[in-house]
Amino acid sequence: MNDALIKEFQAIVGKENVLDAEPDRQAYAYDSAVLDPVTPELVVRPNKVEELGRVLRLCNENGLPITPRGAGSNLSGGTIPKNRGVVVLTNSLNRILEINEEDMYAVVEPGVVTAKFAAEVASRGLFYPPDPGSQAVSTLAGNIAENAGGLRGLKYGVTKDYVMGVDFFDVNGDLVKSGSRTVKCVTGFNLSALQIAGEGSLGVIAQAILKLVPPPAANRAMMAIFDSIDKASETVAAIIANKIVPCTLELMDQRTIELVEDYTKAGLPTDAAAILLIEVDGHPAQVADEAEMVVKICGQCGATTVKAAKDEEDRFKIWEARRAALPALARARPTTVLEDATVPRSQIPAMIRAVNDIAAKYNVTIGTFGHAGDGNLHPTILCDRRDHEEFARVEDAVDEIFDVALSLKGTLSGEHGIGLAKAKWLEKETSRATIDYAKRIKAAVDPKGILNPGKIIGA
Amino acid sequence: MNDALIKEFQAIVGKENVLDAEPDRQAYAYDSAVLDPVTPELVVRPNKVEELGRVLRLCNENGLPITPRGAGSNLSGGTIPKNRGVVVLTNSLNRILEINEEDMYAVVEPGVVTAKFAAEVASRGLFYPPDPGSQAVSTLAGNIAENAGGLRGLKYGVTKDYVMGVDFFDVNGDLVKSGSRTVKCVTGFNLSALQIAGEGSLGVIAQAILKLVPPPAANRAMMAIFDSIDKASETVAAIIANKIVPCTLELMDQRTIELVEDYTKAGLPTDAAAILLIEVDGHPAQVADEAEMVVKICGQCGATTVKAAKDEEDRFKIWEARRAALPALARARPTTVLEDATVPRSQIPAMIRAVNDIAAKYNVTIGTFGHAGDGNLHPTILCDRRDHEEFARVEDAVDEIFDVALSLKGTLSGEHGIGLAKAKWLEKETSRATIDYAKRIKAAVDPKGILNPGKIIGA
Ligand SMILES: Cc1cc2nc3c(=O)[nH]c(=O)nc-3n(C[C@H](O)[C@H](O)[C@H](O)COP(=O)(O)OP(=O)(O)OC[C@H]3O[C@@H](n4cnc5c(N)ncnc54)[C@H](O)[C@@H]3O)c2cc1C
Ligand SMILES: Cc1cc2nc3c(=O)[nH]c(=O)nc-3n(C[C@H](O)[C@H](O)[C@H](O)COP(=O)(O)OP(=O)(O)OC[C@H]3O[C@@H](n4cnc5c(N)ncnc54)[C@H](O)[C@@H]3O)c2cc1C
Repeated sequence: MNDALIKEFQAIVGKENVLDAEPDRQAYAYDSAVLDPVTPELVVRPNKVEELGRVLRLCNENGLPITPRGAGSNLSGGTIPKNRGVVVLTNSLNRILEINEEDMYAVVEPGVVTAKFAAEVASRGLFYPPDPGSQAVSTLAGNIAENAGGLRGLKYGVTKDYVMGVDFFDVNGDLVKSGSRTVKCVTGFNLSALQIAGEGSLGVIAQAILKLVPPPAANRAMMAIFDSIDKASETVAAIIANKIVPCTLELMDQRTIELVEDYTKAGLPTDAAAILLIEVDGHPAQVADEAEMVVKICGQCGATTVKAAKDEEDRFKIWEARRAALPALARARPTTVLEDATVPRSQIPAMIRAVNDIAAKYNVTIGTFGHAGDGNLHPTILCDRRDHEEFARVEDAVDEIFDVALSLKGTLSGEHGIGLAKAKWLEKETSRATIDYAKRIKAAVDPKGILNPGKIIGA
Repeated sequence: MNDALIKEFQAIVGKENVLDAEPDRQAYAYDSAVLDPVTPELVVRPNKVEELGRVLRLCNENGLPITPRGAGSNLSGGTIPKNRGVVVLTNSLNRILEINEEDMYAVVEPGVVTAKFAAEVASRGLFYPPDPGSQAVSTLAGNIAENAGGLRGLKYGVTKDYVMGVDFFDVNGDLVKSGSRTVKCVTGFNLSALQIAGEGSLGVIAQAILKLVPPPAANRAMMAIFDSIDKASETVAAIIANKIVPCTLELMDQRTIELVEDYTKAGLPTDAAAILLIEVDGHPAQVADEAEMVVKICGQCGATTVKAAKDEEDRFKIWEARRAALPALARARPTTVLEDATVPRSQIPAMIRAVNDIAAKYNVTIGTFGHAGDGNLHPTILCDRRDHEEFARVEDAVDEIFDVALSLKGTLSGEHGIGLAKAKWLEKETSRATIDYAKRIKAAVDPKGILNPGKIIGA
């Protein structure tokens, strides 16, 4: 990039917030997806929301591709600067502007870290439920732009269920406002919602109003141990069919259990074929009733043991172990292909059987864990991308996982987004008209095609 | 409209489903808003979803404005065929295609009547919470296109919180698919959400996937009586501030109570300055605790009496009385201007005081009732539109109500939509860039400007 232009960016955000040295830029060439890196021409980090608008305007005037980036923890290539240009970091815009306890909402800048926000909210006696596994690093705008889920999705929903409003910059750097501090708002097109799962390709989030809720008065975490994965997956379906909605209902298969135990020494039963990690919460009497029912259903479905967490420490251990699943699997082989196909909950047993058949058919190693209660499993293929023969089998296996998910009335991605990684499969699930409609919107709000190019709808 | 074209419509939907006689068309010239009627050139009622697509294509080919219409119960002019053209009725597309009890979702055609759907869901042991006052006639697509709220919004949210997916026709009559039968889905742009509160101006809803939940095990309805409206409104804020989330928390002022009692003979206390109608639901123990807390808070805030519903019949009476508020007010004077400005809940006392001041200032009669727990009040101005001098005062009062709502960080419309009625105020709440962004999207997906012209963003 020419010096004069770099100086213009520096004039907006200050010299120290413009990275143009090659090694600095390389750090922003990739994210958490298994995809080829692309080094951006420049990395710019605004420190004020108003600077963000000016940076976008300058990019637009110069036709420079813009890749908004929070923590870069997304798993679908959403922050890979495919057409180079400028990576615009919003992680320094990290102020919590308001926590309104009476009206139970918060107003935040885009770069606030999820876990930090949740902790601040908790310290005020309220609760922000969305808790992606990456919450220690992920930003709230990244969560919105991916519609991130998490461990509590089953009962509490996902990020979109907490977005009351979003202000965002259009590609000209003008501020678009949508939504409100009120719990109901139908004023204008639902433009906030378009930023949800928009992966930064329709605007850059400048501020969000997030809904907060009262925290549950009680909770109980349990671990159910199974000698067959079928029994575990049927238990998931049975719990929901009994109209119990636990806040969390997670599954780990044998491979995942072994690797997590090896990594965390949390005391998981390495001889089990599968475990379910279950938490119910709410009013103490409801928690007691539901926990009893859950134990009963697990037993009826063939659990060998159901252990309840004895105390907060014990409970914490269970969830730490669960959060370690991805890092633990990732240590096993050089490449971790984490899938996210999602099915209606009752189809979880069929999906797990299919994934195991696919692993056998293509001779690939798959560890499966995930938000079973949401129908959102993460079959994780452990491989080495440099081994082209193996990786070709991995790609075939992934293709077939998608086909099975769609045939079970599921979807390509429950929470990890389409990004670059899944754009080519999108039409299969939707229709030509769907892609065309999306492309018309994209072209209208981003005529030069510079807002995070190539994501979701390709090209 | 020329005969040849009418015949083409008849060829698609059958002769009996094309209304071209003047008196028939006049019935579709207005809706439930106080606005001038506009008679459409033709009314067409498809009986199959596939016919709907063909009707739209034919309209598009001939550049005919399209006004989608369910029951016409909206309150903002969303179904007034401003530029004439064709009113397309979707109320005959009224099949419930699937109720999946295991996975807790339903798939419906656009014209299913809300209350009928809720009853069918209830008969399967599940619960569809959104319950607009108009549920006995309103259609599910109308609910989605307006993002309708209702009495249970406080705890259970509004229509948007139950939309898992929407298939809709674009203006060419091609089917766009968005969302899924899975509880999590981030596959593609969030196009379903764009249909929510879209008032039929970005597509015509052909099918929806709606989320269902387990019904609450218990509930308790209560009526708290106050000798001052200030005390009642402060009670609303106090209940929420105590982190109790009732499923319903409704307010009626003195004028509304009198008119409702006159209309329904439900036994309301006509000497009260205000009443709150409150229902808590959930686990029986939680209901008992929360009901006790509510009674205590009402007492502390100065309620003269708090009565609990003795039985289901008693409870039913309370909610029937509440649902009668609008019709009861509407009987009092020839014209009923129902407002929908919404504020953060803690601002309810300030809002009510302001509305009463405005009534005095402009010498207009305002009855106030509504979803106080959501901050969503319906100040209702009783007047006679034919009296131009009076109606000018009414319009000034409405203007000032909006100004106050915005100054309290509220919004123009909580649930009734923008339609034709409020389009001119939209920029005041948002920004020029917001309108421009919306207009760019509108022009991209509807280049001829024939999809429900004039709604939301005007012109
Ligand atoms: C170990 C691990 C566990 C994970 N667990 C989960 C999980 O449980 N559930 C889940 O859903 N995801 C999970 N993820 C994925 C990821 O963390 C989430 O997608 C998260 O929301 C990304 O946040 P981020 O700040 O890192 O965003 P980034 O990765 O920086 O960006 C994500 C997308 O948002 C866009 N974006 C960023 N900032 C803005 C902005 N200001 N305006 C507009 N667009 C913007 C980017 O362009 C990109 O398209 C996990 C990832 C890892 C590595
Ligand atoms: C007595 C009374 C009480 C009410 N109470 C409430 C309440 O408590 N809460 C609340 O939110 N509202 C309430 N309303 C307003 C109204 O009932 C709702 O807005 C309802 O959702 C409208 O449904 P409908 O089927 O009548 O839609 P219509 O009025 O026919 O249409 C509404 C909008 O949806 C569009 N539309 C209709 N069908 C389609 C389709 N298939 N595809 C795309 N767009 C479509 C129309 O073009 C229009 O813009 C009330 C109205 C009355 C008269």
